[in-house]
Amino acid sequence: MYQVRTDLALETREKFEEDNVEIKGVRLEEEQAASDIHISSVIIETENGAKAMGKPKGNYVTLEAPNMIEEDEGYHREISVQLSRVLKRLLPEGESYTTLIVGLGNRAVTPDSLGPRVVDNLCITRHIIKEFGKYVIGDSCHKSVSSIVPGVMAQTGMESMEIVRGIAKETKPDIIIAVDALAARSTRRLNRTIQITDTGINPGSGVGNHRHALNCESVGIPVIAIGIPTVVDAATIVIDTMNNLLDAMSQAEQIRRIGNSYEKLDMMEKYELVHELLTPQLNTLYVTPKDVDEAVKRLSYTVSEGINIALQKSGKAGG
Amino acid sequence: MYQVRTDLALETREKFEEDNVEIKGVRLEEEQAASDIHISSVIIETENGAKAMGKPKGNYVTLEAPNMIEEDEGYHREISVQLSRVLKRLLPEGESYTTLIVGLGNRAVTPDSLGPRVVDNLCITRHIIKEFGKYVIGDSCHKSVSSIVPGVMAQTGMESMEIVRGIAKETKPDIIIAVDALAARSTRRLNRTIQITDTGINPGSGVGNHRHALNCESVGIPVIAIGIPTVVDAATIVIDTMNNLLDAMSQAEQIRRIGNSYEKLDMMEKYELVHELLTPQLNTLYVTPKDVDEAVKRLSYTVSEGINIALQKSGKAGG
Amino acid sequence: MYQVRTDLALETREKFEEDNVEIKGVRLEEEQAASDIHISSVIIETENGAKAMGKPKGNYVTLEAPNMIEEDEGYHREISVQLSRVLKRLLPEGESYTTLIVGLGNRAVTPDSLGPRVVDNLCITRHIIKEFGKYVIGDSCHKSVSSIVPGVMAQTGMESMEIVRGIAKETKPDIIIAVDALAARSTRRLNRTIQITDTGINPGSGVGNHRHALNCESVGIPVIAIGIPTVVDAATIVIDTMNNLLDAMSQAEQIRRIGNSYEKLDMMEKYELVHELLTPQLNTLYVTPKDVDEAVKRLSYTVSEGINIALQKSGKAGG
Amino acid sequence: MYQVRTDLALETREKFEEDNVEIKGVRLEEEQAASDIHISSVIIETENGAKAMGKPKGNYVTLEAPNMIEEDEGYHREISVQLSRVLKRLLPEGESYTTLIVGLGNRAVTPDSLGPRVVDNLCITRHIIKEFGKYVIGDSCHKSVSSIVPGVMAQTGMESMEIVRGIAKETKPDIIIAVDALAARSTRRLNRTIQITDTGINPGSGVGNHRHALNCESVGIPVIAIGIPTVVDAATIVIDTMNNLLDAMSQAEQIRRIGNSYEKLDMMEKYELVHELLTPQLNTLYVTPKDVDEAVKRLSYTVSEGINIALQKSGKAGG
Repeated sequence: MYQVRTDLALETREKFEEDNVEIKGVRLEEEQAASDIHISSVIIETENGAKAMGKPKGNYVTLEAPNMIEEDEGYHREISVQLSRVLKRLLPEGESYTTLIVGLGNRAVTPDSLGPRVVDNLCITRHIIKEFGKYVIGDSCHKSVSSIVPGVMAQTGMESMEIVRGIAKETKPDIIIAVDALAARSTRRLNRTIQITDTGINPGSGVGNHRHALNCESVGIPVIAIGIPTVVDAATIVIDTMNNLLDAMSQAEQIRRIGNSYEKLDMMEKYELVHELLTPQLNTLYVTPKDVDEAVKRLSYTVSEGINIALQKSGKAGG
Repeated sequence: MYQVRTDLALETREKFEEDNVEIKGVRLEEEQAASDIHISSVIIETENGAKAMGKPKGNYVTLEAPNMIEEDEGYHREISVQLSRVLKRLLPEGESYTTLIVGLGNRAVTPDSLGPRVVDNLCITRHIIKEFGKYVIGDSCHKSVSSIVPGVMAQTGMESMEIVRGIAKETKPDIIIAVDALAARSTRRLNRTIQITDTGINPGSGVGNHRHALNCESVGIPVIAIGIPTVVDAATIVIDTMNNLLDAMSQAEQIRRIGNSYEKLDMMEKYELVHELLTPQLNTLYVTPKDVDEAVKRLSYTVSEGINIALQKSGKAGG
Repeated sequence: MYQVRTDLALETREKFEEDNVEIKGVRLEEEQAASDIHISSVIIETENGAKAMGKPKGNYVTLEAPNMIEEDEGYHREISVQLSRVLKRLLPEGESYTTLIVGLGNRAVTPDSLGPRVVDNLCITRHIIKEFGKYVIGDSCHKSVSSIVPGVMAQTGMESMEIVRGIAKETKPDIIIAVDALAARSTRRLNRTIQITDTGINPGSGVGNHRHALNCESVGIPVIAIGIPTVVDAATIVIDTMNNLLDAMSQAEQIRRIGNSYEKLDMMEKYELVHELLTPQLNTLYVTPKDVDEAVKRLSYTVSEGINIALQKSGKAGG
Repeated sequence: MYQVRTDLALETREKFEEDNVEIKGVRLEEEQAASDIHISSVIIETENGAKAMGKPKGNYVTLEAPNMIEEDEGYHREISVQLSRVLKRLLPEGESYTTLIVGLGNRAVTPDSLGPRVVDNLCITRHIIKEFGKYVIGDSCHKSVSSIVPGVMAQTGMESMEIVRGIAKETKPDIIIAVDALAARSTRRLNRTIQITDTGINPGSGVGNHRHALNCESVGIPVIAIGIPTVVDAATIVIDTMNNLLDAMSQAEQIRRIGNSYEKLDMMEKYELVHELLTPQLNTLYVTPKDVDEAVKRLSYTVSEGINIALQKSGKAGG
């Protein structure tokens, strides 16, 4: 069983559906949050499900909003509000927990800059609370929030995980929220989808392909990960086009001639065939929309507002 | 006859060779400049040649250096020196001409930021010469150099060409050098090739797909363009993979079965087939290396040094 | 008569008041726009007034809001609305004029980056209207808006005025709005005051000390200038401290001993005395608040929203 | 005894000299390193010396190069080489120690961005050595180097010291080098002086006024600090101008009248007088040169090269 590269649990699950493979231990729940915001939850319940999906057990909530990418005067506040709702289900109960928010990725590479940019717009309170006490900040915002942009390994010589673990041991937050740019399989999902998961960041995920896990096991503190797909692997694009070719075979007269023989290959053979033909360089390339700078600028604001609402202004967004 | 999207005249010409098509009115000259720098000139001599190539008549010099992408303490000074040599052949004679250097592209999109970054490192002298006279700058640097980063249309509401034409009419430089990030066909050429041409910037070229020409005809002043390919069109990647598949057919047992029927399609049919299968979104996507930030940072320095040497320090680089 | 360096007409006028000098041809009007926004207009009506003030004839409206510098979830929308009201009085009548907005200053020097940052958040429409017609944008936003960040002379080799004049001749806007960071006399006004004037940018003004005028006379198109003081000249700080010393003389026993002799100097002697003692380096220094990055980030958003409301959403802000 | 605010031990010592105060336990050594590079070492040997100087016991080496601020094609390599020489005296013996370099300060405030910018140009090797072993990097560069830009408290909610201590405990470097922008007393020293000290970063120092120490005591690992003064406190400028006034008294006829009474105040009275007259706002302001962006860009390169030479290319710079 092969895996097309995607960081979205929803896409991994869809792939099984396409291939008519049933997987046990994985449950799907859907809800329509607002007229144009669709929320699905993929819940991986068993170790077998985790193995099949290639992702750890846990909750993967996906918030899809086709218009998220469009310019909006209010920076899509309704999406921020829905994001904060989803987030609160995964956050601890009560009002007094402390949070460290981690902006993963490379600020200098536009599609990988989501995490650092989200951190730019957060309400940071830890230092104020430490100095003046929590009552100085106001009724609705007395949670301690700190943040770090660890940078990328080529710049720091360290794994993000090492940096975050060190800081977490030193400052002892109750929970970590890690924000990262993801790779999707489908170009349709680029910049239109937010995934929130309580499984943290796992090896191989993210635009920068994290090598080490950033999760409760590695850091010792629960890690919620928020991600938006901003790139597609170049290899995935090619493979999917080949598959479109396959799908189109039964319609287009022109390609029926090829299809007859290509179809006789099984999925694995097809994948290996394509993979063999891809130049080795393709593995270090990514595909991204031309307007990725504007998209990331807007999306980072939407995400940071979602986090701010969830952590700071609990009263206001409850309505 | 179809055109795979590339801004490199050298690649367009190679395509004809691959397809065993002879084109008249296009001449190729090659030289080995240094142990690992290869210089080729594609000279489009006739209107027919221009039509076949899809590029205006003129000189297209390509400087290929496989190690250009690698880190180098001296920022590849030997490449800067070769670039300055090529540039001087296209620049006016004498020592007293004035130059406006235009950094095209979007500073906020990493692979499109080459032009703005090159301008950051230039020796700008026009204001000093205007105020103090040319003798203040020193023997070897008495040419007047100015620069502009026009920004992209989504930010300015204006074509780069309109901005440059307005400034050129106002400040009357003798020559314009426009620096831009390009799209290549082959991923092997990404960040390893510099193209210098006396035909300026033409519609459809560049990472940002310029809609208007920036050349002698549109601006009224000769325009030399310097470009480095930093992206490949997503569509090109897919088409080339399909062609690799074709090429591999005769070897790989596994795919001979398909090949027999696919081969019977002629080139045009193959292209249309692939194009039809590509999702429409693909046209707004680009493919770029994961380390594009480091590459553009280094390359921009190499290019700006090449321009500085050509314009300012004529004595030193002549050796 | 000496002039303490300030770009705020309001401060120049105050100086005369302090010195008990009456100036003819300069009128002051005041209004309380909202509970904590104070608007004053200095109107220089005669050439004599202009000469005394050291500023051209015209309207200088100052919007003072002490809390402007504070963090605000809505980025001080009430200030943006007041700014748009003031702006509209100076803008042409009707709905069909075209505007070029110029972001003056140096993006790389934090307190001088106001202009470039304001431009980042504007609604730019000219290219959309040119391509699709004005009806595509919607009822309330059919004015054509373009923008340019000309950069600073050390980078471009050109005066901002040359660049803007060239672009204005090429694209023919009906009006220009230039945004710039200013120097104030009083540290109390830093980041708390917006000046809007129909006299454009004049020599010696701005953090970067523009050498050439950017006004109707030099560019051929009316120029409205919007500025916020983000620095104080180091020399001004010292002179004002010396004057505070003077003022304090009558109270503080300790310094009466000095005062007796210092007071005997007339204003001109005092100024020369201080000036003589200032090291020459002081002229190339500026004074700015430590949190200038956060202040400029917030203020630029407030100003760009004010411009957006004035130009694009005339219906909404009219209330 | 009052202290004018300066982070340079050399200036603190000079102040005593000016005031004709002798301090015990503080030694000064001087050397002329090259024609225009002057190196002085202030060695604080006793606790009494430390108390008098207001700085911890240890070595404070100052490298003064008046032309450091000027543009230079080689980015002042001779200064980098001298810096590396000084640095090596303070670094551990042998070739196998590991180093964490900390870029302190705020990247968004130009004169405070020295630390983050220095880190941008470092040769980072830790991750390569961890993965491939030290022999892969080459003979002369087998030391492990990592780096972090912790950001400022308003952004992170954490003290830089907390972040660095956490990372240091996790990654266990043998030595830390912290780079920071400093405040000087004299505008003549701005951007022309490098201070290297083995006492680390101490409370109240730096453009950002660190509140917590980053030294061997607080972090558990020896900390070398490298700093360049890029600002002067606004208060210092005023006080020094007042003192110039005092100095000038004996010459200038005009001010002798004042001087007679002012001179009768003792130093403490003078300081209090001036301080009383300074507006409270002055304490949150700084003074910096107008070309601070270009200066910091160049100086950061010079410093990072000095560190690179000291840590990586020991053979080459030894000559």
